[in-house]
Amino acid sequence: MNRYLKVKSARAWWLGVLLALICLTPLRAAEPLPSWNDGAPKQAIIDFVAKVTAEGSADFVPQAERIAVFDNDGTLWSEQPMYFQAFFVLDRIKAMAPEHPEWETTEPYASVLKGDMSKVMEGGQAALVELVMTTHAGMTPDEFRRIVLDWVATARHPKTGRPFTRMVFQPMLELLEYLRANGFKTFIVSGGGIEFMRAWVQDVYGIPPEQVVGSSIRTKFEMRDGKPVLVRLPELNFYDDKEGKPVGINLHIGRRPIAAFGNSDGDHQMLQWTMAGDGPRFALLVHHTDAEREWAYDRDSHIGQLDKALDEARASGWSVVDMASDWGQIYPQ
Amino acid sequence: MNRYLKVKSARAWWLGVLLALICLTPLRAAEPLPSWNDGAPKQAIIDFVAKVTAEGSADFVPQAERIAVFDNDGTLWSEQPMYFQAFFVLDRIKAMAPEHPEWETTEPYASVLKGDMSKVMEGGQAALVELVMTTHAGMTPDEFRRIVLDWVATARHPKTGRPFTRMVFQPMLELLEYLRANGFKTFIVSGGGIEFMRAWVQDVYGIPPEQVVGSSIRTKFEMRDGKPVLVRLPELNFYDDKEGKPVGINLHIGRRPIAAFGNSDGDHQMLQWTMAGDGPRFALLVHHTDAEREWAYDRDSHIGQLDKALDEARASGWSVVDMASDWGQIYPQ
Repeated sequence: MNRYLKVKSARAWWLGVLLALICLTPLRAAEPLPSWNDGAPKQAIIDFVAKVTAEGSADFVPQAERIAVFDNDGTLWSEQPMYFQAFFVLDRIKAMAPEHPEWETTEPYASVLKGDMSKVMEGGQAALVELVMTTHAGMTPDEFRRIVLDWVATARHPKTGRPFTRMVFQPMLELLEYLRANGFKTFIVSGGGIEFMRAWVQDVYGIPPEQVVGSSIRTKFEMRDGKPVLVRLPELNFYDDKEGKPVGINLHIGRRPIAAFGNSDGDHQMLQWTMAGDGPRFALLVHHTDAEREWAYDRDSHIGQLDKALDEARASGWSVVDMASDWGQIYPQ
Repeated sequence: MNRYLKVKSARAWWLGVLLALICLTPLRAAEPLPSWNDGAPKQAIIDFVAKVTAEGSADFVPQAERIAVFDNDGTLWSEQPMYFQAFFVLDRIKAMAPEHPEWETTEPYASVLKGDMSKVMEGGQAALVELVMTTHAGMTPDEFRRIVLDWVATARHPKTGRPFTRMVFQPMLELLEYLRANGFKTFIVSGGGIEFMRAWVQDVYGIPPEQVVGSSIRTKFEMRDGKPVLVRLPELNFYDDKEGKPVGINLHIGRRPIAAFGNSDGDHQMLQWTMAGDGPRFALLVHHTDAEREWAYDRDSHIGQLDKALDEARASGWSVVDMASDWGQIYPQ
């Protein structure tokens, strides 16, 4: 080998190393979705992503249009024995009680403080709305965010003893990462409170506040001691569930997703609307079938009922995750 | 130079070229903001951007928090002799008239068709709302988008003869680019219709639909012939002006911007709320002072009135663009 060739091959080698480092970094994890067992849902996800990212193919979707929407409760984290935000409400009532001695004799607060949930439920929806507004309104968004973060840092699930944010689904964390590594923009579209979620979903899911769609109460701009603030009001602004989900997506995102992930009939319309667009589409339901590692429930559950959406998934060929068999791991270790 | 050193220097040279190509591509345009004349506003923008992007400095702002919000009417494009969306409304009434023979004798339509705007205005706000709802509701978002795009492609401004989307401000296009090149996420926060803007702002401003906050009407999810659709309803959902702007920002973006750009008292609260946050902040008003190249108006204008916000800008040291002297060019060539 003469000197010129040696120079050239050294140069080529270094260029190769550098380009490899630059280009391959996002792909270091050799195999995507490691917590997903081989099977139809995993294969369908990988096939869909390959299809929409193959430049020049008929199914190619430009990066800006790769919008993926995820329900939260029951899809990204557990939701039993009740929505985790309901634990937040009850914990907050207890934390606020010392400043409200009148609650000891006022419903629904008295029953919450005694831990008598069946008595609370006797108050019906009005009682629940009152508890939500008492714990969610009356402060600025910044103050509410700190309250949520304090709760997230200290609260534990009664059955698992885990922090609630450690009851997110490891396979879904991998899916979010995998989609983003392939140019997707990932959004949450949940019936949960938009500002409740925004406090922690960046850290836990890698989803920034501006990519969260949820239920909301009204806020009001006002000057307090010459300082402009927003104040959270005890009035519903938007309920982001069922028919509300496509409405919320249209309002916040302004275009139809190409992929939607849910677990209940509350996600049915979101999946229908996603699948009704032109071009390649993907819909997936998480079916809670694992009573040992998580919970098993579907058609008759009060929380996360999955009935009509499951029928349509089977009739229309949407992907359905059988949690017990399709997921090798449920929660992060 | 021995052989080893030659190999090494060749390698270093190639690495240098490659890294330069990779790293410097976004900086090819040597000088930022070429249509801005040297002066206080341009310097303030450049100083602010340098400050928040200087890693290790006390004023450094992580990229995810570099949120910049822009009003549209009067800030990114002109707004005289009336908001451009009002031209859209009138043009649509004329285009729809053949299907509505009854309009020839029904107000406010009859006066619109005769071009008698003072008679239309006699109907007050109720007449204007009716015209807006007639032209904005009753179709799906996809259908509305196509209607807007058709109008954008053909409509011309009565004074300049330009397409309305060529009456955007060249200096502001450069500013949007400059901020994005420095890691900012740019949002529109406008009193204009959210879906009216979304139809064209990606092409014109490089701002995607999910980064547009605006006024909106309600939409409803329904099944039509077994196909899920959203339908735009003739009911106001949200009015994104004045006190509404911080509310809209909080709902859609979920965090406080660090930079806000406006031109009227309708932007006052947005700028106040932006400036009231912690850390480095930037606020700028576009003052329409150029009757020759654009329009000159401020405290007494019915469209884009700039009065209280101008006082606060001067008292608080916000940047104020004197359009006549600070901008070397108004519209794109």
